[in-house]
Amino acid sequence: MELYLIRHGNAEERGEYSQDEERTLTETGQEKTKKLGQRLLEIGIHFDLILTSPLVRAEQTAELLKEVGLSEKILRFPDLKPGGKLENWVNWWQESGYNKDHNKLVLVGHQPDLGNWTELLVWGKVASKLIVKKAGVIGLKLPLKITPLGNSELFLLTSPKWLISQRN
Amino acid sequence: MELYLIRHGNAEERGEYSQDEERTLTETGQEKTKKLGQRLLEIGIHFDLILTSPLVRAEQTAELLKEVGLSEKILRFPDLKPGGKLENWVNWWQESGYNKDHNKLVLVGHQPDLGNWTELLVWGKVASKLIVKKAGVIGLKLPLKITPLGNSELFLLTSPKWLISQRN
Repeated sequence: MELYLIRHGNAEERGEYSQDEERTLTETGQEKTKKLGQRLLEIGIHFDLILTSPLVRAEQTAELLKEVGLSEKILRFPDLKPGGKLENWVNWWQESGYNKDHNKLVLVGHQPDLGNWTELLVWGKVASKLIVKKAGVIGLKLPLKITPLGNSELFLLTSPKWLISQRN
Repeated sequence: MELYLIRHGNAEERGEYSQDEERTLTETGQEKTKKLGQRLLEIGIHFDLILTSPLVRAEQTAELLKEVGLSEKILRFPDLKPGGKLENWVNWWQESGYNKDHNKLVLVGHQPDLGNWTELLVWGKVASKLIVKKAGVIGLKLPLKITPLGNSELFLLTSPKWLISQRN
């Protein structure tokens, strides 16, 4: 079972908004996210479900990934907001029916949470040693018969640059 | 300072060779390695130096990366052979003159060593949780003023598929 984590694209500066939750993607952020989605599609990726943080910049990112054809379904997942609890996601996942061998899920959220969740899933503790850029992608293999906490494997970590920078 | 680790490309089966050291890259392995090198070049990567394991399949990989223009220099580094010691590399690096802010080095070697070295550099211990495919690439940021062991950061881990699979 493959779990992907994607950080939201570039968003407007904090100063422009009274509520951090309301910050939207910049034009560049939308463009880059769309290109990333198209590239993932070319590589052959399709998600059974996109789970997104309820913050606007994450929801917009999730919508763009859906629009390019990466998935038919989006679910807002409250614990994907900054400071949310991985344990709540793990509990949800184990009851979700998406914990099968062929499933591919993606979580759209924020830093440092996505990096921290990855470290908890793979090494069982947070050391904050992963650099996850905006519109960056993480890929994990989750075990199905034991808890994924501390038992998952990392196969992908990349900023969008490596996937979408132009060919000559 | 950026340190890259690249696993050798697909090699001939063990059965064909009496000495594991002598196994060469298959045609597919050469092709994939060349494409990977060209893609890294497009992204704007250039290495100050390629360090390679002395085993034939690694040396061939290193040569192909040099041929496409990723570096002008190759150095055989004995501890990049299977079972080699990371500490010996760290000692070399700290005396090498390549431990400067703008330097980019690449190590060409084997699994599980490259994954283990990465875990030692980033988290300080080996848990064997990284999936590193043939011609896969790892990218680390190494600190310059303290030991890199347990103090480095991971910014890239990818199989060649994500970098070189054909566009539609």
